[in-house]
Amino acid sequence: MEGEDIVRILITGGTIDKEYNPLTGELIFSKSHLSNMLSQVRCNVRFVSEEVMLKDSLEMKDEDREEILKKCTSSGETRIIVTHGTDTMVETARFLGKGVKGKTVVLVGAMIPYAFGASDALFNLGCAFSAVQTLQPDVYITMNGRIFLWSDVKKNRGSGEFEELTGQKTS
Amino acid sequence: MEGEDIVRILITGGTIDKEYNPLTGELIFSKSHLSNMLSQVRCNVRFVSEEVMLKDSLEMKDEDREEILKKCTSSGETRIIVTHGTDTMVETARFLGKGVKGKTVVLVGAMIPYAFGASDALFNLGCAFSAVQTLQPDVYITMNGRIFLWSDVKKNRGSGEFEELTGQKTS
Amino acid sequence: MEGEDIVRILITGGTIDKEYNPLTGELIFSKSHLSNMLSQVRCNVRFVSEEVMLKDSLEMKDEDREEILKKCTSSGETRIIVTHGTDTMVETARFLGKGVKGKTVVLVGAMIPYAFGASDALFNLGCAFSAVQTLQPDVYITMNGRIFLWSDVKKNRGSGEFEELTGQKTS
Amino acid sequence: MEGEDIVRILITGGTIDKEYNPLTGELIFSKSHLSNMLSQVRCNVRFVSEEVMLKDSLEMKDEDREEILKKCTSSGETRIIVTHGTDTMVETARFLGKGVKGKTVVLVGAMIPYAFGASDALFNLGCAFSAVQTLQPDVYITMNGRIFLWSDVKKNRGSGEFEELTGQKTS
Repeated sequence: MEGEDIVRILITGGTIDKEYNPLTGELIFSKSHLSNMLSQVRCNVRFVSEEVMLKDSLEMKDEDREEILKKCTSSGETRIIVTHGTDTMVETARFLGKGVKGKTVVLVGAMIPYAFGASDALFNLGCAFSAVQTLQPDVYITMNGRIFLWSDVKKNRGSGEFEELTGQKTS
Repeated sequence: MEGEDIVRILITGGTIDKEYNPLTGELIFSKSHLSNMLSQVRCNVRFVSEEVMLKDSLEMKDEDREEILKKCTSSGETRIIVTHGTDTMVETARFLGKGVKGKTVVLVGAMIPYAFGASDALFNLGCAFSAVQTLQPDVYITMNGRIFLWSDVKKNRGSGEFEELTGQKTS
Repeated sequence: MEGEDIVRILITGGTIDKEYNPLTGELIFSKSHLSNMLSQVRCNVRFVSEEVMLKDSLEMKDEDREEILKKCTSSGETRIIVTHGTDTMVETARFLGKGVKGKTVVLVGAMIPYAFGASDALFNLGCAFSAVQTLQPDVYITMNGRIFLWSDVKKNRGSGEFEELTGQKTS
Repeated sequence: MEGEDIVRILITGGTIDKEYNPLTGELIFSKSHLSNMLSQVRCNVRFVSEEVMLKDSLEMKDEDREEILKKCTSSGETRIIVTHGTDTMVETARFLGKGVKGKTVVLVGAMIPYAFGASDALFNLGCAFSAVQTLQPDVYITMNGRIFLWSDVKKNRGSGEFEELTGQKTS
């Protein structure tokens, strides 16, 4: 089908896209850095990106997740990357896992903003690009170099890392 | 089998690991940056890395490729990433493709050294980590966000990007 | 006198030395980056550095300023750089200006942490190194590429930049 | 006089402004990064910059140095920074030292390109900004955090650092 070769990227915010505001000392959103990131790494995958929102995922509400779900189900593309805050990435993954069928959706974020230099953002985005092109239709999270099915993942708040629920690796 | 969960990384050199020598103005090898890279991105995949050589791939000879092949076939791990220069990455991929069976091998490099800041190194490495965990046993190259089978890839020297031989996408 | 050729660097904290804690999303102090900074820029000035404290300057109290003053007056070196937060740098400069005689003291900080990559830290530190070697004994602040006497400077909190009190340039 | 408060920056090239060309593996000039640099560090000094040339200083000829001299003598500004390659910075400094009167001219460069991230460029530029505002009219070089009079400086090619001719510090 026509939209299949193109990867759709839904930008929703998260630390990956935050910046430092020197006047207030806080981390804020200004604009997404995604196009700079993909241009810097010479990405040659055909993609279309869309800034759905720029939110810290702790501030996401049901209607935000509904909107992301709607974008997933209505898109012509069957390969979708969702950039997202890590704090409630699991919640959104579960919501999408129940509602999206026949598409490969990969949620990804970062612990350090891309704008900060020594970041995990580009590595994670690479994991997502690869995963979205190779995995069977379903909803996944990729963080820390690993891939998790939406139904078997949690964020370990102590370490800041993502793990299976069960302790048994699914990848 | 025992070695299967662990990813083995064979370091062979290439631009990804080069550094700038300010006294001569040349790009040189000093030591691999791989462990810094994986620590920076908080990679939580169990891996073992081995510095096989640190060569510009234009300087690789048959015996170098033989050595890389030997490392692949003799390793207990069935998931292997090979960091490699981009100039003759295709040659090495073909050599390994013919000689390695029953393992998923992914060759990866970079056009800009990791040490230079605005690099494609981490994104490409992320692609490789994801690919090596999801793809069927065979030999692949990942560059520019894409994945290529060893038997259907070439480097476009004009653009510096990797493409299929045939023009038909295999991923 | 013996200590004169050597520049003493008193580290007191400030944004210049802050780091991002990905687990909490906050900016914290871990260790000073000063020696990495001077090594990165191949600084060939003989110096000795001392970590007096690592504080956000909004949290400095009288006894902290007393301690910095004491370090200045008791040092054998007559050229002293003080790295300091920008929020109350003017207060500390005035305190030192009244209490330090016969030495060239330059206070410097940054609006963006050195650790964040696209920072003003190194530029400002360069301004300070130059100033401390060329200026007559007194107490100064350097920020935004400019040099201010301790008695004629304020921080414009709206713009985050330093200016003279009077509007008349003294340098 | 009118032009005096403004600092004039004459851009002539050198490693400070080089970039890495991933297709050839060479360092090249594309455009000067000076305005990005001064904007990044929030420089609040009034300046005007002019790209005189973008050359590796090993390729400078008499007519290039004549041109730089002419720019210095004809400028209304009495405070001039010259960004320059380090290899023949001493030669240009001597040429300007003999020909420029009544102005403070500071030559500065870098051992690592600004574009490479972990660079000395911004620190050196900070030293130059400070020096040009504090030093008596004459011609100087600033590198490695130090300031040298044009008549007492050489580049130590072994270490890549600048030193006095005599071994006696002039600053």
